[in-house]
Amino acid sequence: MSSILQLATRRRTTRIFKSTPVNLQDILYGFSAAVQAPSGANRQPWHFLMIDDLAIKQRIRTACENAEERFHMNAKTELKQWFISKQITSRKPFLTDAPVLLAVFSNQEMPYATESTWLAIGYLILALEEKSLSTLTYTPSYPEEVKTALNAPKSYRLETILPIGYSGDPKLKEERRPVNSSIHHNLWNPREPGKSLAEPQRQVDTNSLFA
Amino acid sequence: MSSILQLATRRRTTRIFKSTPVNLQDILYGFSAAVQAPSGANRQPWHFLMIDDLAIKQRIRTACENAEERFHMNAKTELKQWFISKQITSRKPFLTDAPVLLAVFSNQEMPYATESTWLAIGYLILALEEKSLSTLTYTPSYPEEVKTALNAPKSYRLETILPIGYSGDPKLKEERRPVNSSIHHNLWNPREPGKSLAEPQRQVDTNSLFA
Repeated sequence: MSSILQLATRRRTTRIFKSTPVNLQDILYGFSAAVQAPSGANRQPWHFLMIDDLAIKQRIRTACENAEERFHMNAKTELKQWFISKQITSRKPFLTDAPVLLAVFSNQEMPYATESTWLAIGYLILALEEKSLSTLTYTPSYPEEVKTALNAPKSYRLETILPIGYSGDPKLKEERRPVNSSIHHNLWNPREPGKSLAEPQRQVDTNSLFA
Repeated sequence: MSSILQLATRRRTTRIFKSTPVNLQDILYGFSAAVQAPSGANRQPWHFLMIDDLAIKQRIRTACENAEERFHMNAKTELKQWFISKQITSRKPFLTDAPVLLAVFSNQEMPYATESTWLAIGYLILALEEKSLSTLTYTPSYPEEVKTALNAPKSYRLETILPIGYSGDPKLKEERRPVNSSIHHNLWNPREPGKSLAEPQRQVDTNSLFA
């Protein structure tokens, strides 16, 4: 058994999946953990649509890629450059290559539906990591169009589509900022993220603080 | 070491805290896990303001209670009744009783800032549970007013204030719906939540599905 920190550190986003089938029991394990999350007024607004039918995966991929193509075309320069630097294009092969897609919805009639659902997604992806299953928190551009392809009711928001499977992605985990650049103690520290490395004198000294 | 499912199941929301001090190293452990979460374009939009100064906790409590009082007065009947059934009032003693308050912000200039931050909060509260620390994902009414009291920049959204400490709350964990009432397989199941128990024939049969 691993600690939360070990699982969180080990877990990395995967865009390339092996065709090795996934045991749906392992995904059910993830759901069982996710639904234990707290939610606004305990309304449990999350819904999980699990897709392993290839024809439906193909339909989702087509809907997503059409939307992405428009999105990439209209993206601002900075975002376009980020896409290029990460070799991210409008093509989303993981939407058919991953053995399972998991579309996560939130019922917007419930309080803090989006917030609660993403908190539960945090639980879910750690539970999947525990089962050695990799994911990508893919957020489709124009999710409304993809939702229509899935026939979900109007009041449900499509929060993410998680392709789930075993990683065949050679990329390393993306770097994280040092943890103390995200911490403030008692008063907001005027240092802005991104400038943190240039302004070490303003950083919270976690060695003295947490001695 | 516990599994994710064990931690998720054990973890319950706490509104009454012991005065026992908290080891800030345990909270740092939680941050270290949280910042490993995935985020939109890996921009890591989260900021954690950790408050253990009593005067500042008191200032937050006053700002929150003033806002809650207005909110409770203006709440719809259904919500008012839920508050009464859960004995939730506009008084928030946990905001001064808990040894530490953690105000979590997201930088709204970054993509999917709120979603990413709540996913990281999912990591965080499981890590705190691992350290036997209890929390409540308290979302203040009119968070903008509370944010002003904390002097956070305009572009940062106050997502939640987590009181953190050891639980002195005798309440049991709130019940969860059966996990299969939140699961759909390949096609959206027209069953609505809440009606699930009345329509068992429409439920996904997890025994056959996950055999």
